Amino acid sequence: MEPTTGDLTDPLINHADGQLFLHEAFKIIVEEVLCKGTDVKEKVCEWREPEELARLLDLELREKGEPQENLLQRVRDVAKYSIKTSHPRFFNQQFAGVDYHSLAGRFLSEALNTNLFTYEVAPVFVLMEAEVLRGLRALVGWTEGDGLFCPGGSTSNMYAMNLARYRLYPEVKSQGLRSLPQLTVFTSPESHYSVKKGAAFMGFGMDNVILVKVDDGGRMIPEDLDEKIELSKSQGAVPFLVSCTSGTTVQGAFDPLDLIADVCDKHKLWLHVDAAWGGSVLFSKKHSHLMKGVHRANSVAWNPHKMLVAGLQCSVLLLKDTTDLLKKCHCANATYLFQQDKFYDVNLDIGDKSVQCSRKVDCLKLWLMWKAVGSAGLEQRVDKAFLHARYVVDQMKKREGFQLLGDPQFVNVCFWFIPPSLRGKEKNADYQNKLAKVAPVIKERMMKQGTMMVGYQPLGDRVNFFRITILSPLVSQKDMDFFLDEIERLGNDL
Amino acid sequence: MEPTTGDLTDPLINHADGQLFLHEAFKIIVEEVLCKGTDVKEKVCEWREPEELARLLDLELREKGEPQENLLQRVRDVAKYSIKTSHPRFFNQQFAGVDYHSLAGRFLSEALNTNLFTYEVAPVFVLMEAEVLRGLRALVGWTEGDGLFCPGGSTSNMYAMNLARYRLYPEVKSQGLRSLPQLTVFTSPESHYSVKKGAAFMGFGMDNVILVKVDDGGRMIPEDLDEKIELSKSQGAVPFLVSCTSGTTVQGAFDPLDLIADVCDKHKLWLHVDAAWGGSVLFSKKHSHLMKGVHRANSVAWNPHKMLVAGLQCSVLLLKDTTDLLKKCHCANATYLFQQDKFYDVNLDIGDKSVQCSRKVDCLKLWLMWKAVGSAGLEQRVDKAFLHARYVVDQMKKREGFQLLGDPQFVNVCFWFIPPSLRGKEKNADYQNKLAKVAPVIKERMMKQGTMMVGYQPLGDRVNFFRITILSPLVSQKDMDFFLDEIERLGNDL
Ligand SMILES: Cc1ncc(COP(=O)(O)O)c(C=O)c1O
Ligand SMILES: Cc1ncc(COP(=O)(O)O)c(C=O)c1O
Repeated sequence: MEPTTGDLTDPLINHADGQLFLHEAFKIIVEEVLCKGTDVKEKVCEWREPEELARLLDLELREKGEPQENLLQRVRDVAKYSIKTSHPRFFNQQFAGVDYHSLAGRFLSEALNTNLFTYEVAPVFVLMEAEVLRGLRALVGWTEGDGLFCPGGSTSNMYAMNLARYRLYPEVKSQGLRSLPQLTVFTSPESHYSVKKGAAFMGFGMDNVILVKVDDGGRMIPEDLDEKIELSKSQGAVPFLVSCTSGTTVQGAFDPLDLIADVCDKHKLWLHVDAAWGGSVLFSKKHSHLMKGVHRANSVAWNPHKMLVAGLQCSVLLLKDTTDLLKKCHCANATYLFQQDKFYDVNLDIGDKSVQCSRKVDCLKLWLMWKAVGSAGLEQRVDKAFLHARYVVDQMKKREGFQLLGDPQFVNVCFWFIPPSLRGKEKNADYQNKLAKVAPVIKERMMKQGTMMVGYQPLGDRVNFFRITILSPLVSQKDMDFFLDEIERLGNDL
Repeated sequence: MEPTTGDLTDPLINHADGQLFLHEAFKIIVEEVLCKGTDVKEKVCEWREPEELARLLDLELREKGEPQENLLQRVRDVAKYSIKTSHPRFFNQQFAGVDYHSLAGRFLSEALNTNLFTYEVAPVFVLMEAEVLRGLRALVGWTEGDGLFCPGGSTSNMYAMNLARYRLYPEVKSQGLRSLPQLTVFTSPESHYSVKKGAAFMGFGMDNVILVKVDDGGRMIPEDLDEKIELSKSQGAVPFLVSCTSGTTVQGAFDPLDLIADVCDKHKLWLHVDAAWGGSVLFSKKHSHLMKGVHRANSVAWNPHKMLVAGLQCSVLLLKDTTDLLKKCHCANATYLFQQDKFYDVNLDIGDKSVQCSRKVDCLKLWLMWKAVGSAGLEQRVDKAFLHARYVVDQMKKREGFQLLGDPQFVNVCFWFIPPSLRGKEKNADYQNKLAKVAPVIKERMMKQGTMMVGYQPLGDRVNFFRITILSPLVSQKDMDFFLDEIERLGNDL
């Protein structure tokens, strides 16, 4: 295919052919991903060894293009061998299920293909993002403030750290960390690993993330926080931020925000709440008490792509600040984007609040879903997820082989499956070793049979246990029953 | 809508209703965004003042949900008032146009809604991302190496900085920057602002980004680089990274990589090439010489969402490194995701290479498009974009009111429109002041009339000029002619 040098009369893309392809692909998506992919009679995953899968997919990129039928077969294969994360028996991550309004919003965002840096190229989305942020801030209890959609909760957490250090030492932006004292961050050992990753990435160093003790349920202990802060000060460091978690990744614990806010007040520290996972309880009159005191925070990270089923990626950073800290901290005033002599109010050009330049439109999907079901509908989903978790816990207590890590605070249910051969052997020296090997085997079996998916992990001195996260609005009681039966079926001979 | 407490028999989502909505939304997308949105008889933008637009869109989020007809009207309105970035007369940014295969890939990614952290939840995409990265690395000239899709070129550039400092001082990860010497980064004043934003975010400080002189075309001058490095060393700093640009944002300049690589070799610095914009020339036998020497770099950032029309977001960081630097530098070994006792090769769990946790699937759209048209098809698009740019330049030279900033190296054409009243007045004292006001007025008029979009900016001591970027495969000669006529029409009375 030689470049058609000189011939500029026709564009390179044929809309009719293209739209035909898109229609066919859309049909496959509906059939394979949305119908079969959510049907409990179909598999959650179609396991293949990597070498075999690579061969099946014909991944190689070549000099020449391929015919449309081949490409449609590729679309079908990609769907077939991908994990059906919307399937009612996918419990493996903190996302699951599908919301059709959100999905429509995602398709529309993709088709519109614009960038959230200026009002000029994203008039609708600049206003919409502001409205969604306002709505989420209202749930936190703030009538004013600021915020931004970020490409994930990890980034939102990093932003909080950057803002906190900038508030304390604005010169850090131009001069860097070298001339500053040692800055320390406080979080619990059960907080998300992004706090550590962020500390490394942003030049603080992971050693300056100080881990505060937690209680049995995984909640940060405010007294220990206070002591650790004092200790850090006495060692010459400058504590500057506490990163609490509302809904820890594994146990689903909620740090006691009110008590921690007292400690932060006392020491004048930035209080960040990582509510990436748990933030959605704020929609629920019944459960929002878990985040009591959140309005006292300086910043909140919250991922609607997790419990609200908005679709990846959808994460916000919310700020109480009204002094334009976000922009001051991040701006670089690029004149090719943020001209000051525009004919509209340049405060609508929000791009300089971000450390990104291109920034995907992540607000539309959440907005459309929220419009469709209302705050009441989202509340209902959150409440129902809690009921499901409660149901599973109750059932587990009735069944012999299930042992809970503790009583869940949220929709994470953590448990060991004790196979018959290990029951009553808790005192044996090799019990923990043997128990640690149970979950990986059950996991391998369920993946290879494709019946469901759930994750496992160790935590501190607790050996491998399962964590089921229940959030999908597609789930019903029989999926919970199936889950329990299936764990037994897969593990009863171990 | 009260939570249906206790009733767990039915899921909350009705697939039939949901899919009906999705079908209707899909129809609107095709009609409004893909048909009308690419039709030259339709507007590129439907300008509204922010207050009016907010009212038209009924943005408010309420307690109760809304009927489907309302929601479909919202979908229609969002499409109507959004900028048609695929329109053949949208020249405003470094993205434009639409590729239907890519778009199908994007819909499929959205529907599959998974996360690129483990093989377990993204078997297809772990393998596919590796294959796409391999294909892109091959164009750079590397048969080995590493890489990652990032949420934008800014992030890719930051990663390069983090890797370079980690290679030099691995202790930075745990101890931070405080105990290290002052680290300096070298780039040109025409490089993208993300280098500075990154330096601030990562704790280096913007003052430690040292700007190297450029020639008239905006290309970094290697001799000045060498001098600035020596100077920085003599001041006690440790230069550690040179960030070159292949395709600068405004002028489209390509820094001379081979000569800069010599300087980097001499001083043992990490050579990063920000080819976010220009990287796609590597597909072209005719134009890849612009990046001669790129194989000598340590890292390359490249945004297929720009010139390759893959759709936002699609950005890669490519690395020559074969020592697993990416993982070593970024890993936090979270046991809930990256268990080491899995039943498959855990090297396939690539998530710990990233500082993100959730990471969107950005490879499928590029892969499907590449499969569809082949490397040859992508080459043809790149070559054609150059031809279009050449055509525009030739036409401008023939028309009285157009004055080029210089002879373009790439598909950015930078020019002033000199309205009749200013022609021949170059010597007047207020000429530059008056000229600076021309572009903003023309821009306002074109936005309000909605006929096309192109950006303007000042650069150094050069007052506001237009930058047209020509990359869309939907464009043909008559769009170029229209563009020139339209600038004249809009500016002739100024
Ligand atoms: C508590 C918590 N915080 C932060 C994150 C990170 O969010 P993201 O995956 O969007 O980066 C997670 C997700 O796993 C989480 O569980
Ligand atoms: C040269 C260059 N580098 C980096 C970037 C940043 O890429 P992104 O917008 O994906 O962050 C851009 C985009 O504007 C660019 O032109």
